[in-house]
Amino acid sequence: MRKILIVGFGTVGQGFFELFSEKRSLVQGLELVEVSEIVDMKLGYTRNPPSDIVDIVKGGKMLPEKGRDVLDTIRDSDADIVCEFTWVNMKDGEPAFSHIKEALRLGKHVITTNKGPIALRFNELENLTKKKDGPSLKFKGTVMAGTPSYNLLDLLPGIKVSNIRGILNGTSNFILTEMGRGRSFDESLKVAQSLGYAEADPVMDVDGFDAALKGMILSNVIGWRDEKHSLAGMEIRGIRGLQKDAKSGGGKTKLIVSINKDSMSVKPTELMDDDLLSNVDGVLNALELETDTLGKIISVGPGAGRRQTGQAALTDLVDILRSRKKE
Amino acid sequence: MRKILIVGFGTVGQGFFELFSEKRSLVQGLELVEVSEIVDMKLGYTRNPPSDIVDIVKGGKMLPEKGRDVLDTIRDSDADIVCEFTWVNMKDGEPAFSHIKEALRLGKHVITTNKGPIALRFNELENLTKKKDGPSLKFKGTVMAGTPSYNLLDLLPGIKVSNIRGILNGTSNFILTEMGRGRSFDESLKVAQSLGYAEADPVMDVDGFDAALKGMILSNVIGWRDEKHSLAGMEIRGIRGLQKDAKSGGGKTKLIVSINKDSMSVKPTELMDDDLLSNVDGVLNALELETDTLGKIISVGPGAGRRQTGQAALTDLVDILRSRKKE
Repeated sequence: MRKILIVGFGTVGQGFFELFSEKRSLVQGLELVEVSEIVDMKLGYTRNPPSDIVDIVKGGKMLPEKGRDVLDTIRDSDADIVCEFTWVNMKDGEPAFSHIKEALRLGKHVITTNKGPIALRFNELENLTKKKDGPSLKFKGTVMAGTPSYNLLDLLPGIKVSNIRGILNGTSNFILTEMGRGRSFDESLKVAQSLGYAEADPVMDVDGFDAALKGMILSNVIGWRDEKHSLAGMEIRGIRGLQKDAKSGGGKTKLIVSINKDSMSVKPTELMDDDLLSNVDGVLNALELETDTLGKIISVGPGAGRRQTGQAALTDLVDILRSRKKE
Repeated sequence: MRKILIVGFGTVGQGFFELFSEKRSLVQGLELVEVSEIVDMKLGYTRNPPSDIVDIVKGGKMLPEKGRDVLDTIRDSDADIVCEFTWVNMKDGEPAFSHIKEALRLGKHVITTNKGPIALRFNELENLTKKKDGPSLKFKGTVMAGTPSYNLLDLLPGIKVSNIRGILNGTSNFILTEMGRGRSFDESLKVAQSLGYAEADPVMDVDGFDAALKGMILSNVIGWRDEKHSLAGMEIRGIRGLQKDAKSGGGKTKLIVSINKDSMSVKPTELMDDDLLSNVDGVLNALELETDTLGKIISVGPGAGRRQTGQAALTDLVDILRSRKKE
């Protein structure tokens, strides 16, 4: 039996636990895996969690053991797969970064949905996976939740990507869609907050940083990793202060992440009516890859949500089980 | 060195040979594979084809050995992968069906881009792959060329699909797009023919049969294989005789393949303006999967073309190399 340690048991951790339990008997190989430990900085620690652990936590109870240090838990764990779903500081990617690094250093596979460490400090982490029989680092949930995004490349061996465009932040896309219907920015933001799409402090979403981090993750995957593809080197403009979408030039405005070998930007962009991305409304996300064998291909779907992000982590888990690395 | 026998050296076979040669050094594992034989019902047979074989054939030359029987060639071949790209009769899927069946019977992996055998006689073929260490049967190129379609499911372990909608025939979509711009059906068909999108006899495309076969392939993959998902059991209406798109009700008309557990149809359908499929114009294809964990996800891209179909076969080839079956 292969064992999973879940680090961080908030919405994402709970969503993964639920989906893993629901799908375990349906996916070949999953029956040989179990969640053996859960640790959460606030909730505490448990070994061999009961199947109704999510209900227990939702009911307001803590996990049985309080005050467990997360890094110590990772070190002491006999799990060979660590699912890192902790809250993260977007300035330095901590504490998730240290959790991931320690797990990889110990040779454990890591699945994370935390953008910060993967966007900002990818090289450091990737180096820990490179040795022979090194562990895997998987992070599908960081870009478009479970909706196929950069992992489309797994279906396209040998393909070369020359250009990327994306609508990668559902909150700002929702606000822009509302503004297109005649609301002001402030009104639209309030609607987004009332529906739970936007945080009380919406800076990550509406000022473009969330989209920028996701763009950097895409750049890291493709291999464009120079200064031009860093937060400091790219142009980042959010949607705050935009006027209502008057459709002056005819098209809708979207917050577009645009990336190629030589440059990267996040900015509100007026799209032509026949641009497929112009019809991607509400909280939907979209990714367009321009390639050498297929021309442009596009994937559209949700970019957030409990089950949607759970699907991403499940996809990562099955990738690890199927890979030939370290078994 | 693993060996490939290419059966059928027309546009698809040539496109695959070119792309395989171009990408061979870029994809891990491909350097251990070679195209060792090519056989074509008209062009003849060759062993160890030179790297410029496509130019030779395009220049009007035949392959060195004339009159080779294709089935005998498959039987005598030491290749363990057969790429079946022959012309096919859509009534019974022959001669491709017999080629594929014989190759699978001999334990050879098969890659095909021929819709007929996979749509109409899938169970027979699949049975030959089911024994322990049995060969693989791969057919990505039959639906949306190399653009991710049903193989999106490879990225979504455990997901359940409840509903499928697709724009799966580029020719009819091109004609409908032209009609939306004010041309008649006959004028639009002529444009499609002049651009090489439509055959002289366009019945497969414009009367919905090509889309129906692709829908049946999707049904086969999902596992919906009863009478309701057969050519006889579904409603098939093409686009011939449609009036110019007057946008009477507001939306564009698309030839939509619609599939769920209980029914299947191909018919011109007027879509709402905010339906993402309504913006998929020209020869583009699109597939929408409604799922239990992600809701609706959509893939858009080309559905035909020399390199695009070559990418599909390359994807299939790498899938075979990476699978644990029979090595």
